[in-house]
Amino acid sequence: MANLNKHYGELKASYLFSDIAKRVKEYEATNPELSVIRCGIGDVTMPLTSEVVKALHKATDDMANSETFKGYGPEQGYDFLRNNIAKFDYNDRGIDIKNDEIFVSDGAKSDCANITELFGLDNKVAICDPVYPVYNDTNIMIGRGQNIVYMDCNESNNFSPEIPDEKVDLIYLCFPNNPTGVTATKEYLEKWVKYANENEAIILYDSAYEAFITEKDVPKSIFEIDGARTCAIEFRSFSKTAGFTGLRCAYTVIPKELERNGMKLNQMWLRRQTTKFNGVPYIVQCAANAIFSEQGQKEVKENIAYYLRNANYMKETLEGLGLKVYGGTNAPYVWVKTPNGMNSWDFFDIILNKAGVVCTPGSGFGKCGDEYIRFSSFNSYENTVEAMERFKKVL
Amino acid sequence: MANLNKHYGELKASYLFSDIAKRVKEYEATNPELSVIRCGIGDVTMPLTSEVVKALHKATDDMANSETFKGYGPEQGYDFLRNNIAKFDYNDRGIDIKNDEIFVSDGAKSDCANITELFGLDNKVAICDPVYPVYNDTNIMIGRGQNIVYMDCNESNNFSPEIPDEKVDLIYLCFPNNPTGVTATKEYLEKWVKYANENEAIILYDSAYEAFITEKDVPKSIFEIDGARTCAIEFRSFSKTAGFTGLRCAYTVIPKELERNGMKLNQMWLRRQTTKFNGVPYIVQCAANAIFSEQGQKEVKENIAYYLRNANYMKETLEGLGLKVYGGTNAPYVWVKTPNGMNSWDFFDIILNKAGVVCTPGSGFGKCGDEYIRFSSFNSYENTVEAMERFKKVL
Repeated sequence: MANLNKHYGELKASYLFSDIAKRVKEYEATNPELSVIRCGIGDVTMPLTSEVVKALHKATDDMANSETFKGYGPEQGYDFLRNNIAKFDYNDRGIDIKNDEIFVSDGAKSDCANITELFGLDNKVAICDPVYPVYNDTNIMIGRGQNIVYMDCNESNNFSPEIPDEKVDLIYLCFPNNPTGVTATKEYLEKWVKYANENEAIILYDSAYEAFITEKDVPKSIFEIDGARTCAIEFRSFSKTAGFTGLRCAYTVIPKELERNGMKLNQMWLRRQTTKFNGVPYIVQCAANAIFSEQGQKEVKENIAYYLRNANYMKETLEGLGLKVYGGTNAPYVWVKTPNGMNSWDFFDIILNKAGVVCTPGSGFGKCGDEYIRFSSFNSYENTVEAMERFKKVL
Repeated sequence: MANLNKHYGELKASYLFSDIAKRVKEYEATNPELSVIRCGIGDVTMPLTSEVVKALHKATDDMANSETFKGYGPEQGYDFLRNNIAKFDYNDRGIDIKNDEIFVSDGAKSDCANITELFGLDNKVAICDPVYPVYNDTNIMIGRGQNIVYMDCNESNNFSPEIPDEKVDLIYLCFPNNPTGVTATKEYLEKWVKYANENEAIILYDSAYEAFITEKDVPKSIFEIDGARTCAIEFRSFSKTAGFTGLRCAYTVIPKELERNGMKLNQMWLRRQTTKFNGVPYIVQCAANAIFSEQGQKEVKENIAYYLRNANYMKETLEGLGLKVYGGTNAPYVWVKTPNGMNSWDFFDIILNKAGVVCTPGSGFGKCGDEYIRFSSFNSYENTVEAMERFKKVL
């Protein structure tokens, strides 16, 4: 008899977004006069930029012509794109990353999830709480659920976890962080790199939100840290950088030096991707490549600035109301402490019912999020201002 | 210390296509006068059809406008596409498959590979020889390498394997077959469905080449067989049907009834896809959807007919030369027995060096392919005719 992967039975069903949708629906049914403003979801709202659209049309025409048609491409991405990623996202910033250390993919979610396959099942896995749920769920699915060490993130450690007492082998870090919006300092990351090298651990560094970093001296890549090439893998995405959530393009960086038990992670991932994946559509890679032109850079930076203006506006308004606020400076998310230790769902309900504004309750990201809510800046400026005006009347 | 997935060490390195490339390069260096005709690869050569191109341009414009912009879509695919797949590929052919039994993805390769995650590691896995290497390699990677039961496919069983003596739990079947081009009869598939239901095994049915079926009474789907809904999963692709190898769209069908140990495969796959995947680009789903219009159907059928004319031409020419030939009628591949039991690489070298024609040596697909070569019809008609003219002089 075929038997199934029993670890799927260990997954907790997530009702976060369906619960939110249900409560919003109830609100809308009883309050038809006040339209809901959605500040919950982490999905972009601005359309693709003009250079990206131009590149998509041009690439589509390539596909319509037998001379320029592209069939199967290299699974790890076309050289034109990998060269530009290496140059603009690394080399021009003084970081030594080569073309063949970059693997283009359909999403940082896929890569964060699939990378778990490269490791033995008995590794101890360090995961933050609160956290993007994918790290947790994919380790449970593969059978590593008993080996997860949760690292509490709270005000006392500025949502940047300390190194756990228990020895850990795989360490998920995400900065700028989802959901808290906090960033890491260079000194802080150095501690982790030192730990990982000394203990032959591996850091899985998610920097999907690096484009939102505005302050100098905030590291955009784990590879800005000396020694990271022997202990880290980095995940990046065009989703938030260039509004590609519906277009799907990302990449993973695995240095050639990274090895354990005599096996090289770069070669293993190449084998994984060439065996289990057929690459990102040519037209999408052309679109991603368009953001590296001068005009392309200008356009995506304008979009980021637009969202950051929203984030800053929310941060300042909420702070002005006397709330404790994290993130919002180098991240699209604003992480807000509930008043008087209120439960995050209770605060969610108050904001929804009194203001018609939807946020995300922090408990959806882990138990340490229970006294927080997350606001997203992926909205129009007008909606953001209106949401804050309504919010003012709640408190 | 982080330890790595040791099963990667059990994988055999594949030098098939690099070996072919090396030999072709050597030939070209010494024979600059005769250009090589490539009949080896399984990649399409005709550009995207006009309706597909139109849909891509239109969907790109949707992405350029904030009113019609699409961010994250449903991981399992947009309803507009799933509804059309259900209607055109199943319901209109009298097969009961519902919208929510269809999961749109970036490729049948990804799905065939990722489906292995849903099963326990101790399942016995039945795999054909010769075979598309992905089934084999992905089972080795996950740690099921010791549990693979190879099923020899040869002339005596018309390349359709018998049910093995040893009990098996997961059964990979692919019809029309890659590499042999043979199809399965309804009676033949009934035997497997009966076996799977009696033994609670699961059939993983790859019908990526179903669009090439021209003869009546050849099943296009495992779900044409009574009882398949309780024992089968089907993989389909737009790659060969509509020339999407560089555009990336496919789907997997998992009936609601399919369960083992009280767990439902449809729900598990939904959980897998929503956790580890973020869906196919909106523009690509619009492109896939375009093939279901009247004009879209007409265009893709013309392309398939073009390739099939090539396949038939090769089949007839080679048979006329006294060779044993399989496939080529309901498949884009022609599987040719080497003369006098010659080794497939030796025959490959003769064809390359005497005719400047590149095929694929059958041993690249498994030991049972050792006395065969594969010709692909994904070429221009002119090249196909020229390749056969040159081939005639070889024998």
